[in-house]
Amino acid sequence: MKQSQMFIPTMKETPADAESASHQLLLRGGFIRQNASGVYSYLPLGYKIIKKIETIIREEMDRAGAQELLMPAMQPAELWHETGRWDVYGPELMRLKDRHGRYFALGATGEELITSLVRDFLNSYKKLPMNLYQIQTKYRDEKRPRFGLLRGREFIMKDAYSFHDSAESLDKTYWAMYTAYCRIFERCGLKFRAVLADSGAIGGKDTHEFQALAEIGEDTIAYSDQSNYAANLEMAAVLDTDASEKEATQPLEKVAGKQEANEQEIIAQAFKTRTETVVVFIKASDEMNDVKLKNVMATDLLEPIPADFNLMKTDSNVRVFADNGVKHLSQSVLYNKFEDVTYLHLDPERDLNIVAYDDFRFIKEGDPSPDGKGTIRFAKGIEIGQVFKLGTKYSEAMNATYLDAEGKAKPLIMGCYGIGVSRTLSAICEQYHDEGGMIWPKSLAPFTLHLITVNPKNEDQYKLSEQLYQQFVDLGYDVLWDDRKERPGVKFADSELIGCPVQVIVGKKASENIVEIATRKDKARNETQAVSLPETVDQLLKTLD
Amino acid sequence: MKQSQMFIPTMKETPADAESASHQLLLRGGFIRQNASGVYSYLPLGYKIIKKIETIIREEMDRAGAQELLMPAMQPAELWHETGRWDVYGPELMRLKDRHGRYFALGATGEELITSLVRDFLNSYKKLPMNLYQIQTKYRDEKRPRFGLLRGREFIMKDAYSFHDSAESLDKTYWAMYTAYCRIFERCGLKFRAVLADSGAIGGKDTHEFQALAEIGEDTIAYSDQSNYAANLEMAAVLDTDASEKEATQPLEKVAGKQEANEQEIIAQAFKTRTETVVVFIKASDEMNDVKLKNVMATDLLEPIPADFNLMKTDSNVRVFADNGVKHLSQSVLYNKFEDVTYLHLDPERDLNIVAYDDFRFIKEGDPSPDGKGTIRFAKGIEIGQVFKLGTKYSEAMNATYLDAEGKAKPLIMGCYGIGVSRTLSAICEQYHDEGGMIWPKSLAPFTLHLITVNPKNEDQYKLSEQLYQQFVDLGYDVLWDDRKERPGVKFADSELIGCPVQVIVGKKASENIVEIATRKDKARNETQAVSLPETVDQLLKTLD
Repeated sequence: MKQSQMFIPTMKETPADAESASHQLLLRGGFIRQNASGVYSYLPLGYKIIKKIETIIREEMDRAGAQELLMPAMQPAELWHETGRWDVYGPELMRLKDRHGRYFALGATGEELITSLVRDFLNSYKKLPMNLYQIQTKYRDEKRPRFGLLRGREFIMKDAYSFHDSAESLDKTYWAMYTAYCRIFERCGLKFRAVLADSGAIGGKDTHEFQALAEIGEDTIAYSDQSNYAANLEMAAVLDTDASEKEATQPLEKVAGKQEANEQEIIAQAFKTRTETVVVFIKASDEMNDVKLKNVMATDLLEPIPADFNLMKTDSNVRVFADNGVKHLSQSVLYNKFEDVTYLHLDPERDLNIVAYDDFRFIKEGDPSPDGKGTIRFAKGIEIGQVFKLGTKYSEAMNATYLDAEGKAKPLIMGCYGIGVSRTLSAICEQYHDEGGMIWPKSLAPFTLHLITVNPKNEDQYKLSEQLYQQFVDLGYDVLWDDRKERPGVKFADSELIGCPVQVIVGKKASENIVEIATRKDKARNETQAVSLPETVDQLLKTLD
Repeated sequence: MKQSQMFIPTMKETPADAESASHQLLLRGGFIRQNASGVYSYLPLGYKIIKKIETIIREEMDRAGAQELLMPAMQPAELWHETGRWDVYGPELMRLKDRHGRYFALGATGEELITSLVRDFLNSYKKLPMNLYQIQTKYRDEKRPRFGLLRGREFIMKDAYSFHDSAESLDKTYWAMYTAYCRIFERCGLKFRAVLADSGAIGGKDTHEFQALAEIGEDTIAYSDQSNYAANLEMAAVLDTDASEKEATQPLEKVAGKQEANEQEIIAQAFKTRTETVVVFIKASDEMNDVKLKNVMATDLLEPIPADFNLMKTDSNVRVFADNGVKHLSQSVLYNKFEDVTYLHLDPERDLNIVAYDDFRFIKEGDPSPDGKGTIRFAKGIEIGQVFKLGTKYSEAMNATYLDAEGKAKPLIMGCYGIGVSRTLSAICEQYHDEGGMIWPKSLAPFTLHLITVNPKNEDQYKLSEQLYQQFVDLGYDVLWDDRKERPGVKFADSELIGCPVQVIVGKKASENIVEIATRKDKARNETQAVSLPETVDQLLKTLD
């Protein structure tokens, strides 16, 4: 494609309101334009990349046995009433009223719609399992859209939904999707981790998030430096590895007021659930992780409350837990606010009414990895995908049942699997750029080759360029030819912003049939004979991601 | 793909509310499902066809030099205020309010948005022309959605917008798009006509609609039986071919009341524009065409009024026109209601104050074709595409200007070009079906081959089918294998509904390696040896559309 005829509105200056590298460079390189807060157009260059990502997704989803369909963005409110989400979803769900006064949601997600589509057809175990996906525009009215495509209000998503007659069947598809996602993100060139995530108290059990590693990411990932282990910070299990013998026990000592001591301090955190009060003792140097307590107690509500009661003589309707880290202590110090007294030489096992020990703290960098291999490190991640065992939440609410082999009606067991397509583009930008602009991986580059004619008014340069352009197009390369009558500085700056993997520069030595070749990554230019260019480009591409 | 694992919810009965063949068969064949009035899901089979249509569109648009982008469906109301269309568009424009109370239109069309995108960049004649397109979901809140995908509220459209610095440049792109559209619809296998259409009084000049021929169509097309001439009924010019000598003139005769006479009757139709009153005389046997009068008078408002004034002595502020058909009359009869008098032997030229003759009537079947070749016939059409010279309507309203070679700011000259993708699918259905279901053209069939195992529990049948399935997949065919444990009647009925071009039936003679082959179109089955099947299928496909 001739650059003079293409719509690539590059920008010299960094837009003031673009905070992340991906947002800045996608705007500056003419890949996207903002139409409203959180609402973007994909310009020709950007949309070429989106389509390449979509093709990879389609190929891997089809390979994994999923079938593509396309559902509407307009979803009747009645369906969302069936699951109660019309009221629960809040202002993030975009809503509209048609000319007859009927309400619709603009799809933020598709569980209700897909369940309504299949519920009459998937009426027998013989028709299961079934896995359906779509690549579609989604809507979410984010309160504070930011980072460009990373948190937009209209965005492209791949969402898939599977239907099963057993937990084993769901498990099989779940891991098939997990594998497909790994392949998709690998083919996109992304550095990512599949991390254990929290499924919430309601809904299914297993869930993994796919996190692209990037400083700008809003999630912290705990990963092993020696294995594939990775988990969301809140989900990473802490090993109960302390096998040390307890020290000799001293008698409990009671001192007025809050006192410093040379012993391990423990603290108490109190919570209320819907039905009871609980206290958790934990080392003061550790951080309490509510999610773990929620999961242990199987509750969706946990409200922190002040621990303003006697920690030493908790009454019988307060359950007392302690973190595993407290188990082996015998010389600890605890301030009991209720009495305004500090206890020294406290042995939790001896002195507190602990009913059970468990893992209640956040993992820390340097902790051993829960899989026993290596040490935990932290990284920031951008969530680009998620696989999720939904169970029967939606099928029960919407009465989507199948008949099993005995002719008994049972709710369909469901899984759902999402990929943020526009987010994936942002994540790739965060990982593949330098100060000058984008450095696209080969698999996604809008053009493989950027042919730059330094001075197209010079006949030698123009003719050689034209000939090379045609030659590479005939060889099947996607070539962007900068034939514009612009200053060389403008051309080279634009070429950096656009970020094609290989640049071929036709300049002064065109009359000698000599051109320069460089990769976008290291920028070092080498002279080469025009005749040997196809071979040189081919060789060079093999060295690139 | 194994049919047992595919989501193809066929229906035995014709849905009561589906009026057209395309609507009925798309539902019955499991291609689409309705989610709300005018809102549909494309199920896996239907979406496969949509994607094939989209691929053809992309290839031809790219070949014609257009660039693909993707704009959002959410369009800020401010843009629609700039052109005034927020108020003009009426209830067909879907609107929504975000959580901050800002209004958006859900794109029914994209002129405002694209103009806002390019107006800063296309600032010089050097960057012109530019042609940008997208394939996108569009929204139109139709009062009465009907015929399934034919008049939906959420639908897929290809819309393109071109920008120019001269009428000649626009003309060139206009005809390039015209040619691309012909290629697209030909590749889709459609019988269609590109017809001259009315551009309306406001906006551009040239416009053609692409009409797929179908009885269900809402538009009447006038076409020549001997040339490519075709026009919307309202636009078809009537040739002024009457070269007959006037008959000898008799004196005008005046008779009281309304009288019958053996002469050609003429009538008068009166209209008011914003500024004047006009009368048009026309043969009583012809039908007045307001659109032609509007265009002759260059007005967008024309209100029919009673002709309750003296037709013989029209006062000077009433302009009097006559249709060409009146020009050669000398023996006509006219009833003047104002006087309650019938005039006989009236010679319009002599007796009426006619200032000009022109073409003011609708063309009729049997009229000579306006291009001088053949005779006019009528047909019904479904509008599947339109090319349109917009001129400067939007660029002027939105201040989208470029600098010409002299450095003078001028409004961009625009064209726009639409294809209804989901409508095209419906039009194909209308043209390619029989009572049993769809008969897809090769270029769009969801699968080329339908392999039907009559009894999959029979080992010979299953093994031979499995072997043939693999063989054809390896040969690059798209094969649907009906491996379901259903009754043969169900299988054959479904196969008719689904409509793959070629069917291979593996039945009782599987043990002898003999199968049956048939085309969906003529259904006649022929036995063939399984070993020669690839060759037979190949031959058969060559005979099909």
